[in-house]
Amino acid sequence: MRVAVPLRHSYRLLNHGPTTLIASAAGGRRNVMAAAWVMPLDFEPPKLAAVIAGETFTRELVAASGEMVVSVPTVAQVDLVHAVGSSTGRDADKFETFGIGTEPASLVAAPLVVGCAAWLECRIVDEPDLAERYDLFVAEVLAAWADDRWFHAGGWDFADPLARSLHHVAGGSFFATGERVDATTRKRPR
Amino acid sequence: MRVAVPLRHSYRLLNHGPTTLIASAAGGRRNVMAAAWVMPLDFEPPKLAAVIAGETFTRELVAASGEMVVSVPTVAQVDLVHAVGSSTGRDADKFETFGIGTEPASLVAAPLVVGCAAWLECRIVDEPDLAERYDLFVAEVLAAWADDRWFHAGGWDFADPLARSLHHVAGGSFFATGERVDATTRKRPR
Repeated sequence: MRVAVPLRHSYRLLNHGPTTLIASAAGGRRNVMAAAWVMPLDFEPPKLAAVIAGETFTRELVAASGEMVVSVPTVAQVDLVHAVGSSTGRDADKFETFGIGTEPASLVAAPLVVGCAAWLECRIVDEPDLAERYDLFVAEVLAAWADDRWFHAGGWDFADPLARSLHHVAGGSFFATGERVDATTRKRPR
Repeated sequence: MRVAVPLRHSYRLLNHGPTTLIASAAGGRRNVMAAAWVMPLDFEPPKLAAVIAGETFTRELVAASGEMVVSVPTVAQVDLVHAVGSSTGRDADKFETFGIGTEPASLVAAPLVVGCAAWLECRIVDEPDLAERYDLFVAEVLAAWADDRWFHAGGWDFADPLARSLHHVAGGSFFATGERVDATTRKRPR
């Protein structure tokens, strides 16, 4: 079941470096792309940084709306991730082309991609220099959600191997998130 | 054996989102910290983005030298990663405190941490606004290295489970990089 994640814990949805999907919507159009270059940027209020290349349709929709949804897809979705990462949505709606289910977000127009393990609804922080020089976007996380089968009590628990997140290397080759490794001296996470 | 990685492939050392170590040196002092908020930012010339909090000793050394080395530590080093991520090097040299071996880098003063799977020698791009507002640093990768047992032919191959990279969640709890998952439609990586 999709449940709200407290904003102070939302960085944990991205802290392990998963490849993401970025969904966008503006002017009656929508799109979704794959993005590996995404990371947390601050805890509270939570922010993230994401690279969105200049020529993409996502870039147009994100610039027009000032919003996006960052989702954390699973091993079961690897072909979907590669497909939306290897095609443009400029000429045809990728959600229809690839049969991708969506749910409405709570605070932004961009949709949540059904089947992902987590979702972050974001508002873009206006930084035109960063976008122009580095294709880099800073966003504040307004709302966060996770599938409570895989993220509960403030942490990931990938009980099903197909629910694990993905880590793209290059050209459609990924690693799954692997087994948990705790430092022997670890403290209880805050 | 440690071998040079072509700069055009150096993004692949970080593309899967591993937690890193950031080593720094200036004015006869040196330091090493753990950093999960690091990601590639460009292919050629390769750049990366890294968050280095304002109050850290690393921040001082990186600001003073304009250089750093980003290393990719392994599962075998999880206690080392947590130790250098939970302590300051301001009062005592962490390399001595924790018995961390180093090798000299080729182009920067900061050292390579022995036992890691990969290393990126970096020069900081001067972006004072980014540092002040977001604790965010942009760096150009000047040289890249990998242990050729775990990275060869342009890709990772974590044959030994203890050589896999780490993905921090919170408080000393990590995931190892898991098994390879290829999209069924994948192309040969460029």
